[in-house]
Amino acid sequence: MNMARSPDQPNSQRSEYFQYWDVSASFDVTYRVICANGVLLSSNPLLLQLGSSEKTGREDHGRRLVFVESEVFRFYSEAINRFFGKGSRIAILNATEKTKNLRLVEHAVQQMTQFGINRRSEPVIAIGGGCLMDAVGFAASIYRRHIPYVRVPTTLLGIVDAGIGIKTGVNFGLHKNRIGSYCAPIAAVLDTTFLATLPTRHIRNGLAEVLKMAIVSDATLFQLLESHALDLVDACAKSSPVSLRIINLSIQRMLEELEPNLWEHDLYRVVDFGHTFSPVIEMFKVDRLLHGEAVAIDMCISTVIAARRHLIDIAAADRIIALTNRMGLPVINSDCTAANMQTALDDIVKHRDGLQRIPVPTAIGEATFLNDVCLQEVMEACEYLQRLFDEGALG
Amino acid sequence: MNMARSPDQPNSQRSEYFQYWDVSASFDVTYRVICANGVLLSSNPLLLQLGSSEKTGREDHGRRLVFVESEVFRFYSEAINRFFGKGSRIAILNATEKTKNLRLVEHAVQQMTQFGINRRSEPVIAIGGGCLMDAVGFAASIYRRHIPYVRVPTTLLGIVDAGIGIKTGVNFGLHKNRIGSYCAPIAAVLDTTFLATLPTRHIRNGLAEVLKMAIVSDATLFQLLESHALDLVDACAKSSPVSLRIINLSIQRMLEELEPNLWEHDLYRVVDFGHTFSPVIEMFKVDRLLHGEAVAIDMCISTVIAARRHLIDIAAADRIIALTNRMGLPVINSDCTAANMQTALDDIVKHRDGLQRIPVPTAIGEATFLNDVCLQEVMEACEYLQRLFDEGALG
Repeated sequence: MNMARSPDQPNSQRSEYFQYWDVSASFDVTYRVICANGVLLSSNPLLLQLGSSEKTGREDHGRRLVFVESEVFRFYSEAINRFFGKGSRIAILNATEKTKNLRLVEHAVQQMTQFGINRRSEPVIAIGGGCLMDAVGFAASIYRRHIPYVRVPTTLLGIVDAGIGIKTGVNFGLHKNRIGSYCAPIAAVLDTTFLATLPTRHIRNGLAEVLKMAIVSDATLFQLLESHALDLVDACAKSSPVSLRIINLSIQRMLEELEPNLWEHDLYRVVDFGHTFSPVIEMFKVDRLLHGEAVAIDMCISTVIAARRHLIDIAAADRIIALTNRMGLPVINSDCTAANMQTALDDIVKHRDGLQRIPVPTAIGEATFLNDVCLQEVMEACEYLQRLFDEGALG
Repeated sequence: MNMARSPDQPNSQRSEYFQYWDVSASFDVTYRVICANGVLLSSNPLLLQLGSSEKTGREDHGRRLVFVESEVFRFYSEAINRFFGKGSRIAILNATEKTKNLRLVEHAVQQMTQFGINRRSEPVIAIGGGCLMDAVGFAASIYRRHIPYVRVPTTLLGIVDAGIGIKTGVNFGLHKNRIGSYCAPIAAVLDTTFLATLPTRHIRNGLAEVLKMAIVSDATLFQLLESHALDLVDACAKSSPVSLRIINLSIQRMLEELEPNLWEHDLYRVVDFGHTFSPVIEMFKVDRLLHGEAVAIDMCISTVIAARRHLIDIAAADRIIALTNRMGLPVINSDCTAANMQTALDDIVKHRDGLQRIPVPTAIGEATFLNDVCLQEVMEACEYLQRLFDEGALG
């Protein structure tokens, strides 16, 4: 601690006017992202070992509070009930973009209070998709000012994106993730066998974030996606080798981007590609678009803006738009109105602290940032994409 | 980032089963605790300089969202309106233990959204007592996953305790500070001239936390309090030299305890003295006791427990109880029922992760921790204090 007095009153007893202390400290975070199939098999001790109080030498009866997304529980109730012992409590949550708000967090906090969770040695376990990860992670981050938690994403979006970073959050009114925290889980446990029961549309939803990582940081990954575009959904559902290779590469690139900037001190983030216009169109009619679908549209708009500025060559831009379409993702929709795009531009400047910092691709696997995008440019990009769509010219 | 594969499948393409990545990063925090009188004088640029975007080379019109406790605004509305420019917004909050809940946080978040605050360069300013610091700090810590804020405590409790650490939080039902965060302000600006308008009971409220620091860490401070016990309130109201010396010493000791353990990784904290039984009796009838009053009662109970175990000599214990009483603070009250004390013991074990870790004094200026306090012992201490009170034998 550094304590200082005013230079002009160095010895004064009455130097309080300028006296100050500087308090400094450093917080170290480490969390493990683990690929581990069959996490709900009774023979697999992993989930109960993570954050167990064994380390501290105290008793641990594997007593856990487990939050499970209701859709997931429908498929895995038997395995979940069998896996967690009698002392545990399974709390079933309906977590969607529609319900991902403070009420859901309050409900989770209520469960934590009723369960009487120990502050450090009984990690909460969150099993579900991105919305559940976000909301339960947020609840864990604020309950008694932070209790440990483990993420078990069951969707592809959770596995490649929402489950492996340290962000938590919920919507506030129509504002997506307006409140939240940075709070690392103890671990993210990635089990792709969950994808066997995931609806096709939700696999595509996760693939949009894989595509994002490919466009901004990995041409090889992009080529892999191009080669397998039509059978990707099936490959993921079956955890086939090629899907695992793709998922693995995507995670690797994501973590490489996240780790040096975990708390987003730098607001120029390539992983924000596709996340400029999408928050508004995603929330505009919350039943209409999944997160990845909104991101796909945003990526196409951003790509066209870059192409019209000659920042990326037309052929590369065409490949991006064509691949998005071939992967079964939308490239434009009717909610991309001038009013919504203006709202998005206004909000992104607040969110990125006074500058737009819009990531756009400059080649397959590379990106830069724009700070001077105007509404007209955005709308021209939207109209271009709409024409492509109307003309059936999406490749 | 450390990436590993299973040792038994080092070269396998299918080693996903055991593959993991360790993500590691470090978060550095520095904040300044500044003693600065006259912060609302138009001639004093301090409040607008803190966290100003000047550093980043961008424009700053001194546009600020300012949260002010309603009681404070009653006294200082003119100065506050004069100090903050036209682009600023003054949001008046009624922040008490009764209203310090998620609804208040939502209200603050709503204000932040309406104001359209920039994420990094327009720090929120919180002017008020401990409850306001706690609630606004929490709102700032979760709005867009953290925006900067400045604390301007106007109560003695805020100046010596709630305003200078990094804890934020609100009550959840009857559970005190059950949800919250660790989130350092940019700065805490301590202006003792606010104490001129603070009611006597609230000055005593703050003095309880000063007394706490004296008992667990500073015999000199304790002696100062003993010497000035009867005129302390007046001294604080006038910002007299002795009060400034006492406040200063208390802050110094507090920061020395906080800085090495800012995120409470170590749950053995001497600053938790007086904070074992107090959360329950404080919340039991929330209009009855102020925070410092509940802490005072808790300190007396803990001291008697220590004395009955011969951990502190009787004379020292007597001095602690007598000084508490002479400072106009309660030493016991009728809410210290067996039911409430049992609730407190149960909850503190959850809060301190499986162990009681109850700080008790071993001498004036020193403390240790107990992990085996039973209800009977607590009730005997309460009964002893009640007898002292009934007999008028509090020294």
